[in-house]
Amino acid sequence: MQEKQLQELLGSLSLTEKIGQLVQVPGEVLNAEGQELGVREDLGLSEEIIRNAGSTLNVVGAKRIKEVQKAYLERSRHKIPLLFMADIIYGFRTVFPIPLALGCTFEPELLERLCEVTSQESVAAGAHVTFSPMVDLVRDARWGRCLESTGEDPYMNSLYAKAMVEGFQKGMSDGAKEPKGMASCIKHFAAYGAPEGGRDYNTVDMSERRLRQEYLPSYKAGVDAGCEMIMTSFNTVDGIPSTGNKWLMDDVLRKEWGFDGVVITDYAAIAELVIHGAAEDQKEAARLAMEAGVDIDMCTGCYANYLEELIQEGRIDEKQLDKAVMRILKLKNKLGLFEDPYRGADEAKEAGLFLSKENRRLAKEAAVKSMVLLENREETLPLAAGAKIALIGPYADNQDALGFWAIHGTKSAVITLKTALEEAVGAENVMSAPGCETILEKDYHDLPAMQKQYGMEGWSDEKRQEEMEKAAELAAQADVAVLALGEAVLQGGEGGSRTSLTLPGDQLALLKKVREKAAKVVVVLFGGRPLVLDEVSKLSDALLEVWFPGTEGGHAIADVLLGKESPCGRLSMSMPRCVGQMPLYYNHFNTGRPYDGITPNRFFSRYTDCENTPLYPYGYGLSYHKAEYGPVTLSSHIMKKGETITVQADITNTGSRAGIETVQLYLRDVAGSVVRPVKELKGVQKVALDAGETKRVKFTITEEMLRFYGKNMEYCSEPGKFQVMIAPDSSYDMQAEFILE
Amino acid sequence: MQEKQLQELLGSLSLTEKIGQLVQVPGEVLNAEGQELGVREDLGLSEEIIRNAGSTLNVVGAKRIKEVQKAYLERSRHKIPLLFMADIIYGFRTVFPIPLALGCTFEPELLERLCEVTSQESVAAGAHVTFSPMVDLVRDARWGRCLESTGEDPYMNSLYAKAMVEGFQKGMSDGAKEPKGMASCIKHFAAYGAPEGGRDYNTVDMSERRLRQEYLPSYKAGVDAGCEMIMTSFNTVDGIPSTGNKWLMDDVLRKEWGFDGVVITDYAAIAELVIHGAAEDQKEAARLAMEAGVDIDMCTGCYANYLEELIQEGRIDEKQLDKAVMRILKLKNKLGLFEDPYRGADEAKEAGLFLSKENRRLAKEAAVKSMVLLENREETLPLAAGAKIALIGPYADNQDALGFWAIHGTKSAVITLKTALEEAVGAENVMSAPGCETILEKDYHDLPAMQKQYGMEGWSDEKRQEEMEKAAELAAQADVAVLALGEAVLQGGEGGSRTSLTLPGDQLALLKKVREKAAKVVVVLFGGRPLVLDEVSKLSDALLEVWFPGTEGGHAIADVLLGKESPCGRLSMSMPRCVGQMPLYYNHFNTGRPYDGITPNRFFSRYTDCENTPLYPYGYGLSYHKAEYGPVTLSSHIMKKGETITVQADITNTGSRAGIETVQLYLRDVAGSVVRPVKELKGVQKVALDAGETKRVKFTITEEMLRFYGKNMEYCSEPGKFQVMIAPDSSYDMQAEFILE
Repeated sequence: MQEKQLQELLGSLSLTEKIGQLVQVPGEVLNAEGQELGVREDLGLSEEIIRNAGSTLNVVGAKRIKEVQKAYLERSRHKIPLLFMADIIYGFRTVFPIPLALGCTFEPELLERLCEVTSQESVAAGAHVTFSPMVDLVRDARWGRCLESTGEDPYMNSLYAKAMVEGFQKGMSDGAKEPKGMASCIKHFAAYGAPEGGRDYNTVDMSERRLRQEYLPSYKAGVDAGCEMIMTSFNTVDGIPSTGNKWLMDDVLRKEWGFDGVVITDYAAIAELVIHGAAEDQKEAARLAMEAGVDIDMCTGCYANYLEELIQEGRIDEKQLDKAVMRILKLKNKLGLFEDPYRGADEAKEAGLFLSKENRRLAKEAAVKSMVLLENREETLPLAAGAKIALIGPYADNQDALGFWAIHGTKSAVITLKTALEEAVGAENVMSAPGCETILEKDYHDLPAMQKQYGMEGWSDEKRQEEMEKAAELAAQADVAVLALGEAVLQGGEGGSRTSLTLPGDQLALLKKVREKAAKVVVVLFGGRPLVLDEVSKLSDALLEVWFPGTEGGHAIADVLLGKESPCGRLSMSMPRCVGQMPLYYNHFNTGRPYDGITPNRFFSRYTDCENTPLYPYGYGLSYHKAEYGPVTLSSHIMKKGETITVQADITNTGSRAGIETVQLYLRDVAGSVVRPVKELKGVQKVALDAGETKRVKFTITEEMLRFYGKNMEYCSEPGKFQVMIAPDSSYDMQAEFILE
Repeated sequence: MQEKQLQELLGSLSLTEKIGQLVQVPGEVLNAEGQELGVREDLGLSEEIIRNAGSTLNVVGAKRIKEVQKAYLERSRHKIPLLFMADIIYGFRTVFPIPLALGCTFEPELLERLCEVTSQESVAAGAHVTFSPMVDLVRDARWGRCLESTGEDPYMNSLYAKAMVEGFQKGMSDGAKEPKGMASCIKHFAAYGAPEGGRDYNTVDMSERRLRQEYLPSYKAGVDAGCEMIMTSFNTVDGIPSTGNKWLMDDVLRKEWGFDGVVITDYAAIAELVIHGAAEDQKEAARLAMEAGVDIDMCTGCYANYLEELIQEGRIDEKQLDKAVMRILKLKNKLGLFEDPYRGADEAKEAGLFLSKENRRLAKEAAVKSMVLLENREETLPLAAGAKIALIGPYADNQDALGFWAIHGTKSAVITLKTALEEAVGAENVMSAPGCETILEKDYHDLPAMQKQYGMEGWSDEKRQEEMEKAAELAAQADVAVLALGEAVLQGGEGGSRTSLTLPGDQLALLKKVREKAAKVVVVLFGGRPLVLDEVSKLSDALLEVWFPGTEGGHAIADVLLGKESPCGRLSMSMPRCVGQMPLYYNHFNTGRPYDGITPNRFFSRYTDCENTPLYPYGYGLSYHKAEYGPVTLSSHIMKKGETITVQADITNTGSRAGIETVQLYLRDVAGSVVRPVKELKGVQKVALDAGETKRVKFTITEEMLRFYGKNMEYCSEPGKFQVMIAPDSSYDMQAEFILE
């Protein structure tokens, strides 16, 4: 449709019909039979609004989407197709590792490809918009939604944001007969990843400087990559919830950044303006959100019930409404919905794409590349050929390993580690036992209520003891005990905030017991966040962080354990020594009294009972090869205006296996008009090295890389001294200096 | 001296002499014999600068001050007396409870009196300026300097700031023959109490709104009360260390607030601008500090070595220097130093004042009023007359109970609990044993180095076991075990940051062991911060938080335990359930998804493994009386412009003892242009109630009390709904509403 036609369409709509476009209704109230469910009444939505609703949430599947769209259009006067949006975060039916794990690949191209594949599955299932990527910067492992973030680094998060948006949207507006791509919605704008105390939905407070310097870049990268949609965050920004924050949504997003796509709220966020204490009632909440430039009201009755009144009272200009409607119509048009309201929905395609061999292959590749080998003492890994394996732990044979936000994923398709190991080395070489449950009530206070609700039963005390004994027995009989341990899926994700970061349930006790009996102990750690691993690490010969690895996790882990693949993931988030260190991140300020970690003197910025450093730093990971880094050299020690300099180092694989080294460039601005971090990642190259091979790795430093928000919020570089390092992780010292003139 | 004479004096000074006034040298380089010590050279200070230095640090004692002043003046051309400053934080020789404890009195008048008494002792010892009060708002118990703060509430902190400044400075500029009062230095400007992760000296980052709304009021209250001096903080504010932060020091402090006193740095803070990365070198650091309006450089060579060059290069205007010098001269003049450079220093007075009976009485009163009774199951306290007491624990007979920042206090004058109990009930009724040491290396990593340095020895494993057995034996023989437990002094205060908030050493094990043997267990808890007390609480019949109670702590505790006094302290800081809750404070925002603490649903702002609430809330404390609060009534449900309303409740003592009830008024602004806290303390009345007595407590609500920094940073109230409660602590629900028109 041409813009002119869209304008005509808009002009033909009644006020109610226009408002309808701004209303997103939960999937539960829409069905082919036009039945109404209680939830419509709970939200106070009229039948008329439902009939005119512009979009819906989490209705997926080709068959169902076609039915709902058909029924909707039959009941609709204006025949504007319904927009189907869904939470498709890190895979649709084929589920990839969680984003925090994907962040460990340091390979944005891979994430782009995963999103492209995800959108293929999703398009076949009839979805139009995905609420992904989540690009919130994270620094506090207590927050459960760490798992949805690509990590703690603004530079990498920005690269990932761009890659994912481009992956999802690839081919979206080509107008091809065979629809490709789906609209990507960047979330949660802004700074949702910094809730106080790591408690989900809690207050966020920071300086505008920090917001712009550290938190906003990844959202901006998504906007610059052309994302069609942005979701507001639940939190306050400068004391005002994002959903009603005109400065954030209008001044920054629309005016500064030029975003002209659709803004949608997070679930029920307009109504929550009242609970926040930012609006006295829902009508005022609707006014604030509309004024801020929020187009779509997700699942509340605020717009539906009050916009008409507000417009009639002159408190909202109908032109504002028209703008919002037009943005939504444009998106529908871009997707080609006016030409084909059933865009892409195709049962035959679903069958061909869902969990296809190629998609599974990609899921396995992503899982391999996102695992982080944290310890490998005495080359415990890879396991010797023919080793008898005792596979122990709640994740030994557990399909519940997709992480919290894979609601459309096929859990029954998950390859468990037991299945994969048996395939690889024969069932006769794998003895298996769970050893213990994942969690107990102490780890998750709602557990008894949930067990009751779902008719589940926890283990009795006797069974707890028996199973642990049994597991220890197996360990004694094997050459190596592989312990598949980790957090429960429930413990992470939205609402999954923890005050303790230890291994839940009886797992540490199980590890200790097995350690006593086993010749070698390999811990394979599942989970959605950095856990406190000091004890786990000490009790393990090898420690492999596999996060929630997705559909093909089992195969990927087996391949790594057995040496078919070499692990190459590097941490996307610092791993703490204890929860009392939170927040923890590598790109902090130096402070006036930085601690050297050695001198027994309290008057430094340090804890008296714990080291300042993480247990494992950002960017860290081992592989089966061994990399040695030669000295860093610069093409010049002076960077003149408009020029660049080159920094390089020779990297040698001194090990006996080929591998991929993730070479990291960090810079430091030694002194600025405002304080700059002790180091910032500014470049990454993944370099394949054969055994014995040396490669020269070069990075170009440009003036743009040295820019930041200066004293008066101008974004620019400042002359002076800079330091450089090329290193295998963020914990190294700076190695060379140059002067920016 | 008249201002004109001061101007003439200023005009007569050489550049070096003027710069000298801005230099504060450590006490170590100044002595009557004019000897030089290594520290002068370490700082790169010339003899000439030392000869002209304007002030010195922590040289105290009438005799010594007179010697140093005399020698200084003899060597001085201009004969401007040296200003003697000292860290006199919560007492001089007589030490009062730590400020966090004093915050629990809710009695600003008492703090005023303590500061007045402290200044009497200090003036006799020749001190002119004290670096007190510290008015930093605190919300994170990991930070060791919590102990120096009066707590987490902006309203109370402001009242305390005013009271303390007025107490210290009382009579200071009267020009009386007998000098009274000393200059008070508010610190640490600004927001030093909010270091990330509770780690001392760490980065502070917050919105300007939070800074102004929550953190600045207490400093402003000190300025409004007429404090003569302000100290910069070590931290960054909006990315710029305070000491070089022109916006903070000049725009806010001098221009907005009209402060015309002296600004001094914290220790070595100008040199630390370089380490922060805010200046490339010390010369630039000196320029930044001077430009920001910092008058006195505490203990670095930055001003001494670079100001002259900077002025000669025209990078600093000499007029700026003159202004700074004039502010210092004015302070010296206010103190009457030109008339009497030995102001107040008097050995005879020292003898009469130091640890005088009256000062000790006041110290005891303050200690009684600052103790917080956290639990008292089955009326375990007060102890029955004639009870046989087993007094156990590292604080049973320990004079090291002054807290970290009482460097001029007389430790040997401290009354221990053992001494006091024996005095009160006879030695025959008190059996005593330490049971264990205070801390082990796990609690304080530098402990072995310190033990080595001071030739101390830790207990052997055998002794640890023996002592614990012995203590348990005593408990078995007694009617009640009183356990005096707590943090080590070393663990708190400056540089005393902890990642764990549990009882250190073997103390919890000792408590468990004693619990098994004892008929009744009373825990008396020493320390400088809120600790995690869930287990301690469960193991105790009564739990009395005594903080670091000062010189007269022993007598005060004994009086409370034995019922001579009723405890009436109320918590100045929320007490956590676990360290993973940090930061924790009562006046938080509601969020969009507040948790009711009951519903088993994760999609609220909550932790899955710990309650959101503190173990003991702000304002909480028990007494030996029992207060019942009647319903809250308002004089009107509408507050008209320019009018006030009255809120009142009847409070009845239903217990059998008289007591003092701390009645608290909290308000909530239900909805604002920016989000407002769930409750804010706005009034306190300490009400004496006889057994059975009812008193009507009234508060007047004014429009001023409803003001805050609105959307555009205007400070005003907004019409709308407000809620009110009159309650014994901060944990209650709101009880009444009114509308501001």
